[in-house]
Amino acid sequence: MYKSEKLANSLKLLIQSGTWKPHEKLPSLRSQCKNSGFSLITVMNAYHELEAQGLIYSKEKSGYFVADRKTFSTTHSFDTNQKIEINSIVFHYLKSIQGDHIIPLGSAFPNSQLLYSPKLIQILAQLAKRHFSYEQTPSLPPGNIELRKLIAQRYCMQGIQADHDDIVITSGGLDALNLALQAVTQIGDYIILQQTVFYGAWQAAERLGLKVITIPDHPEDGIDLQALEHAIEKYPIKACWFMLNCHNPIGYTVKDKIKEKLAKILYQHNIYLIEDDVYGELYFENKKPLSMKYFDENNLVLHCSSFSKILGADFRIGWVYAGPYSEKIQHIQLMSTLSVNSFIQNALVEYLSHRDYDKHLKKIRASLEKNKIDFYHFLQRILDQNCKVHYFPSGYFLWIELPKELDSIDIYQSLLSKNISIAPSHLFNAHDTKAKNYLRINCSFDLTASYQEALLELSKCINHAIQLYRASK
Amino acid sequence: MYKSEKLANSLKLLIQSGTWKPHEKLPSLRSQCKNSGFSLITVMNAYHELEAQGLIYSKEKSGYFVADRKTFSTTHSFDTNQKIEINSIVFHYLKSIQGDHIIPLGSAFPNSQLLYSPKLIQILAQLAKRHFSYEQTPSLPPGNIELRKLIAQRYCMQGIQADHDDIVITSGGLDALNLALQAVTQIGDYIILQQTVFYGAWQAAERLGLKVITIPDHPEDGIDLQALEHAIEKYPIKACWFMLNCHNPIGYTVKDKIKEKLAKILYQHNIYLIEDDVYGELYFENKKPLSMKYFDENNLVLHCSSFSKILGADFRIGWVYAGPYSEKIQHIQLMSTLSVNSFIQNALVEYLSHRDYDKHLKKIRASLEKNKIDFYHFLQRILDQNCKVHYFPSGYFLWIELPKELDSIDIYQSLLSKNISIAPSHLFNAHDTKAKNYLRINCSFDLTASYQEALLELSKCINHAIQLYRASK
Repeated sequence: MYKSEKLANSLKLLIQSGTWKPHEKLPSLRSQCKNSGFSLITVMNAYHELEAQGLIYSKEKSGYFVADRKTFSTTHSFDTNQKIEINSIVFHYLKSIQGDHIIPLGSAFPNSQLLYSPKLIQILAQLAKRHFSYEQTPSLPPGNIELRKLIAQRYCMQGIQADHDDIVITSGGLDALNLALQAVTQIGDYIILQQTVFYGAWQAAERLGLKVITIPDHPEDGIDLQALEHAIEKYPIKACWFMLNCHNPIGYTVKDKIKEKLAKILYQHNIYLIEDDVYGELYFENKKPLSMKYFDENNLVLHCSSFSKILGADFRIGWVYAGPYSEKIQHIQLMSTLSVNSFIQNALVEYLSHRDYDKHLKKIRASLEKNKIDFYHFLQRILDQNCKVHYFPSGYFLWIELPKELDSIDIYQSLLSKNISIAPSHLFNAHDTKAKNYLRINCSFDLTASYQEALLELSKCINHAIQLYRASK
Repeated sequence: MYKSEKLANSLKLLIQSGTWKPHEKLPSLRSQCKNSGFSLITVMNAYHELEAQGLIYSKEKSGYFVADRKTFSTTHSFDTNQKIEINSIVFHYLKSIQGDHIIPLGSAFPNSQLLYSPKLIQILAQLAKRHFSYEQTPSLPPGNIELRKLIAQRYCMQGIQADHDDIVITSGGLDALNLALQAVTQIGDYIILQQTVFYGAWQAAERLGLKVITIPDHPEDGIDLQALEHAIEKYPIKACWFMLNCHNPIGYTVKDKIKEKLAKILYQHNIYLIEDDVYGELYFENKKPLSMKYFDENNLVLHCSSFSKILGADFRIGWVYAGPYSEKIQHIQLMSTLSVNSFIQNALVEYLSHRDYDKHLKKIRASLEKNKIDFYHFLQRILDQNCKVHYFPSGYFLWIELPKELDSIDIYQSLLSKNISIAPSHLFNAHDTKAKNYLRINCSFDLTASYQEALLELSKCINHAIQLYRASK
């Protein structure tokens, strides 16, 4: 055992035994060196290890303190093993669900036949010839001005004042989120994620060297504001990354009242919000859910979205409404992907100006709702009574809760051998070893015979796992 | 003055006076604390400041040593001011040269009329309709397999064994370079850059928190291997990022003999090479210059290129021949841009399989050579005799050396007011305050009356600056 490990373990004992209380200050690095006779590097490594385990936290210029582990789930820095773990799961998962022979219940992409718009295809075909003959200059950040104006108009339709200069076009939604997070954080900063979250958020935090606090999902409100406030009291939080509309994977949409409160909390503590709103257009009820931008009077919200779930993921066009961070984000873009395909941007300008776009949105909402309800009823009928299917009127995911004893990764693996994919909860709860018994189903497809068969296979698999568990007891 | 600044200054004096010799070990942080009575943070800040200034360097587990500043130019960590400086120059430069009214002598993009291929346009128009109707699934890393096979075949044509599984498609050349550098380095690692270099290299190093050593340009060989070896002896170098073919901005191509030696040096010290070869197809002589991959028997070279300078920058398709780093790069891609537009990849597959591609390459080489020679002769005739135009038989840049007293940023600014852009050397020598008297000209255009006028304006500007300088003496 290394000296630093030894030291970490002995400090850990003091914390766990309650000798050191939550929020008590630990000895400074120097005095720890003096007392222990260990080198500075050894002491620093031990403290870093404890910080990575969420047992202590640091405040700039004040030193290290004992963490309070009761009020919210966990703090995470990323050690090497964790990194490999998250990325390997996601990587192998994404690899496994490629291929035409797979029934893509695990896919994050909506049924492409629904997204098909003949008008857009017509524009693309006409434009391809014109564009590549004459306009070979790449579109540098912030991207096509007409497209940004059209996006700004859509914000205004919801009563959100938006200036096209505050909007930056990106290579899809994930790029927008990454850029936004990078713009407001520095290595070592603390951020808050929802406990159940799109895995891209964990990966972005890892890539940028951020420390992650997670707050539990609230059964009614979606987001647990009390846990949020506790976390803010205990840690110097720089930013939150939340999905509040048509949440992936669970499906809920946070109510306006809660959003308003959230905005107040952010303002009180001067905390940024990276809002992931890529599913925002896929509501089934009358009114488009509001973005946090609506409640944001202090430019703390960076609102990210894309056309991937509406027109197709292959367009790779997203945007961030970045407010005063627009220029900083453009700086980062110039250092990485440089520019976004201007052909596709031109095509979207033409298409978004056309009345077909709103018709298209209406159509896909109606189709998604029908398919989702069909899937829901079918699953209700065939699944074991100990399973619960969470239904929300938006998006195209169903979140299935299995009996607690089951591990969805087993279901995932045995279905994959039958050429059916699902998304196990491990993808969305990267660091929570308890929440293994959930899985996400993509229900954007017509419930044809082959999808019915796939769902029956899923049901069989679950029953088999339940029997195995009972037999093992 | 902060305590740490005070301490840094007093240590600096000891180094500059020669009291501490190059490669001598500095007192450990702990003993420095003890002796000075300063806090650990103060001492660490002082050492970091000296390291950022290139006066000292660190070796893992051994401590800090005095740097030897004679053999090569400079070490750079990035302090905040430097960051803002590089990015601001590049940002404002890139912004300033946009717009149809600007004569783009400063542009990095080749004349788009030269890149125009009717066959490719035909393929794009036909494919747009087919692709967006049926294939809306995004292409996940490593990208289209047919495209990777076609690229692998092109390596094989030069005698470079290439497996398509070792190739990853990226969002353009800059993305390829960034991914490659990220795959082989960690925060705090040392890398080597050429002194005169595409600014993207500096930005990538900054973004990844790397320390940069620069080695001078060699008047004949292009790259100074002696300086390289000196740097390797003194610093724990992890990787080099070099452009050896059709160098941007200078224009030279490094000879095979030198490349062979370079490969040996890399192998000896187990150092990675990120090879920026985006201009590699634009040679005017008989033979395509070899990539360092040809000399690389130990998988130390990550070869990066793109179609931007051949077919148009707006395609945003590049690649990295990453060998065993292919999977790691795909991991990073999944965390950032996720995927590369598959429509464009499909179109390139169709086009690259067509015999028109090689014809197209021949045609643009011939046109670029003609235009470059025209520009060269014209400039020779009109420029002050104290200017030197560096001509190399490749690419579409001319590198103009002004009299030493002149600063090319003045020329840039006064030409911009006349709607003419040039690229001042500040973009390529981000940290060298001496090399201000160079500028880069894009000569991919037909030397029409308006370009002749622009070059005459350039000549006038230079003459004016020379007169101003003489008058000021």
